[in-house]
Amino acid sequence: MNGAHALIRTLVDAGVDICFANPGTSEMHFVAALDDVPAMRAVLTLFEGVATGAADGYGRMAGRPAATLLHLGPGLANGIANLHNARRARTPLVNIVGDHATHHKRLDAPLESDIDALASAVSGWFRRSLTTSDLAADAAAAVAAARSAPGFVATLVLPADVSWGEGGRTAAPQRHRAPAPVRPAVVREVAEALTGAGPRVLFLGGNALTERGLLAAARVSACTGARLLCETFPARLPRGAGLPFVQPLAYPPEPALAELAGTRHLVLAGAREPVAFFAYPDLPGHFVPEGCEVHLLAEPGEDATEALCALADDLAGDAIPRVSEDRRPHPPTGALTTRTLAEALGALLPPGAIVVDEALTSGVHLAAATAGCPRHDWLTLTGGAIGQGLPVATGAAIACPGRPVISIQAEGSAMYTITALWTQAREQLDVTTVICNNGAYAILDGELERVGAARDGVRARRLLDLTGPALDFVALATGMGVPARRAGTADELVDHLRWALAEPGPRLIDAVLQSATR
Amino acid sequence: MNGAHALIRTLVDAGVDICFANPGTSEMHFVAALDDVPAMRAVLTLFEGVATGAADGYGRMAGRPAATLLHLGPGLANGIANLHNARRARTPLVNIVGDHATHHKRLDAPLESDIDALASAVSGWFRRSLTTSDLAADAAAAVAAARSAPGFVATLVLPADVSWGEGGRTAAPQRHRAPAPVRPAVVREVAEALTGAGPRVLFLGGNALTERGLLAAARVSACTGARLLCETFPARLPRGAGLPFVQPLAYPPEPALAELAGTRHLVLAGAREPVAFFAYPDLPGHFVPEGCEVHLLAEPGEDATEALCALADDLAGDAIPRVSEDRRPHPPTGALTTRTLAEALGALLPPGAIVVDEALTSGVHLAAATAGCPRHDWLTLTGGAIGQGLPVATGAAIACPGRPVISIQAEGSAMYTITALWTQAREQLDVTTVICNNGAYAILDGELERVGAARDGVRARRLLDLTGPALDFVALATGMGVPARRAGTADELVDHLRWALAEPGPRLIDAVLQSATR
Repeated sequence: MNGAHALIRTLVDAGVDICFANPGTSEMHFVAALDDVPAMRAVLTLFEGVATGAADGYGRMAGRPAATLLHLGPGLANGIANLHNARRARTPLVNIVGDHATHHKRLDAPLESDIDALASAVSGWFRRSLTTSDLAADAAAAVAAARSAPGFVATLVLPADVSWGEGGRTAAPQRHRAPAPVRPAVVREVAEALTGAGPRVLFLGGNALTERGLLAAARVSACTGARLLCETFPARLPRGAGLPFVQPLAYPPEPALAELAGTRHLVLAGAREPVAFFAYPDLPGHFVPEGCEVHLLAEPGEDATEALCALADDLAGDAIPRVSEDRRPHPPTGALTTRTLAEALGALLPPGAIVVDEALTSGVHLAAATAGCPRHDWLTLTGGAIGQGLPVATGAAIACPGRPVISIQAEGSAMYTITALWTQAREQLDVTTVICNNGAYAILDGELERVGAARDGVRARRLLDLTGPALDFVALATGMGVPARRAGTADELVDHLRWALAEPGPRLIDAVLQSATR
Repeated sequence: MNGAHALIRTLVDAGVDICFANPGTSEMHFVAALDDVPAMRAVLTLFEGVATGAADGYGRMAGRPAATLLHLGPGLANGIANLHNARRARTPLVNIVGDHATHHKRLDAPLESDIDALASAVSGWFRRSLTTSDLAADAAAAVAAARSAPGFVATLVLPADVSWGEGGRTAAPQRHRAPAPVRPAVVREVAEALTGAGPRVLFLGGNALTERGLLAAARVSACTGARLLCETFPARLPRGAGLPFVQPLAYPPEPALAELAGTRHLVLAGAREPVAFFAYPDLPGHFVPEGCEVHLLAEPGEDATEALCALADDLAGDAIPRVSEDRRPHPPTGALTTRTLAEALGALLPPGAIVVDEALTSGVHLAAATAGCPRHDWLTLTGGAIGQGLPVATGAAIACPGRPVISIQAEGSAMYTITALWTQAREQLDVTTVICNNGAYAILDGELERVGAARDGVRARRLLDLTGPALDFVALATGMGVPARRAGTADELVDHLRWALAEPGPRLIDAVLQSATR
């Protein structure tokens, strides 16, 4: 068999059986070999940023990597923004990047570029496969690297001749590094700190954010009084009635600093020390207050859920954790604002939903309004590279075919990877996209004021304005085969959400928010 | 003044007064400073690949750089594919990439990434500005580097604190390297080779492709019998009645090899030795036939137009160059095929048009059908990274406000940077986009057959198919504020082209090609 054939079989044997693809000429042997290995499902995307974002969403929900198939340096580059988000989410993910044949490189053909530099910038593991006979073992190593705790982006460069060459042999799956186990001495030390004096915070992230981990954290909180907070942008947060309500740390620096002010002991479980998203002239970037002791219960790569369970057991096995009650807002009426948007979602969120949240400023009320909904998972913009939401929703829907996906999406960010809608239509995925359409890069309005720009700076303001022309997402969705409706009031949003959730398949709602809430 | 203010003034003083922008928080001081420097025009794009592609189109037509404003590593990454094309086009272009404040880097905040690696992969000049007082001089150096022959992508990283810091001072423009002058001894040697025995080819590219350069080349051809060919994908090719018809070298390797077979002397003027776009198992990648002598009249960075003029003078000052006659096809009727599409364009191309050609397989008849049209410029996909056409058209329209831009665009590639339409609408640019809609990545159909994939490989074929759902470009354009119509016959295409060309402003025609020509 040729290299491509051996590669695909090896991926499937190692548990990678989905490939989000944007192939080109150098990947044609891989494409041709798909017909030899029916267990590999290839999903076409119209842009590489959709492929990598979908692989991220898939990996977050499936807990194992999807592959991407990308076309040389430019194809990889188009996927880097969402690979950056995946890297921050610690999502296991395997990129296959086609390249020119080995003997073609020296000719500096038009598509030649420094793939290795691009790949290394965003990959936890990187290799260029050099011979057809090594290719399958390289692929097995890539999968093992991606799956090793805490989860990595692994990139394998596939020269065309290595792919088309004969003499390929499949390779057995390789072992990956499991999360490091609980360290009893550390658990004991943290338990002592949490029963000491002064305000205490348990700061959760990464693989602490499982149902078991959250319930254990809530037990710890119940018997120590420690507050629970989690990373501002968790990769995947289980939520809803019966689970503890864990507040993500605020995004703007002032409230984040206020939330942590006076903390005496900060315990990290799966999270790193909290820092500011951006620097500002007169604010600290590091959020741990002076005089606060930081305790590392479990760092990324360790088993934070087990560590939390051990900690809860050490402290008091029978404390009753505080969890969210089963309670939803009423379906709202009247004006469509960020508040009624959140209430509509809270009123109607179906059981088992996966919420992909790239609502940015329009999402301020979502967490409170949905805390008492049936259990669901919440996926966020981990790395700050906008344009993640629609692709992540696409991949999550493929990972979990039985679960409804709700994609709450700021309009400016939506446009980065809008073609994800086409893949949702082609694969008939059960994704409901709600566009939060406020006609602006609203998050930057605040930032512009913060930097002291003149309020009458019309030329600056114009760079944040998305009207003139206004984006019509009903037309855009329809143009890609996704049925869509526009909501101008809360009542319409409720009606349209009922319509969208009534049956599977992709739907889009263009939620035009009242100017008062922009 | 702060750093951002000094930076923008310095750019303007150096002749860079357009900035295609996708700003984020770290660029807010740059955005705020726009109101202090009205001479800098900022154009908002909804995706960085549109910004970089527009800067490429601007630079090709204006002959001087535009700036881009990009947001950290992910923003730069989104722009890399079109920067790759700009690099291959040798377009002068200056990227300003915002980064975290210097003291914030060590915190590894979510948006932190290896910008330097990403930038270096695609830039001919790269610098990270380290202090506010150096910033303006760094910017002047960036512009000089971009403008130096033959033209470069220059990337300046702008840390937020360097931007917001006070004590900025403007810097004077720096000298850039002009194209190296003609070498008389080389001209003489080439003249001798061209008057020798055996088939001779003059292979043109880069800065040979000016009206003067082409007319000089045609004089050389007239008195030596040397054939004229040019690069397969020229950055900018002047064409039309009164100018020589220069055939670009074929894209597929077989006809390209046939065109060059038997050549005894190959003279390079502004072009590099021709090589295959991709490698194939049984074909050579290097197209110069055995026994052919290669003569370097002017390499990139030298003045190829002057060298051609000197060569023509040396050979025979009074030879009459063969040029295209003033002749257009009749407006076609009947089925809409790649041939009638080309005829419609040939029949109606307005004087002074700028044609941006990313038609790929649908463009096979365009060159012949438009050769006798009024003079126009032809801009192509120089680096093979698809999604260049709509952005390049956007930038070209801004560079040349009095000239109509016709963007002939394959539908699969269009989707990569479809949001360029929104910027065309916002700026009311005179761009007519014709989508060549054949429902497939048709160029890959041929490649799949070439690699010997089974013809009944339905899973492979499905990865090249763009129907199910079909893309509705009338809806997509309308959703972004561009008036649009669909053409299903040649007659309709002619009608719609007349409509689109009748008045300025953006228009789109979704040209649905007959399946026989797919």
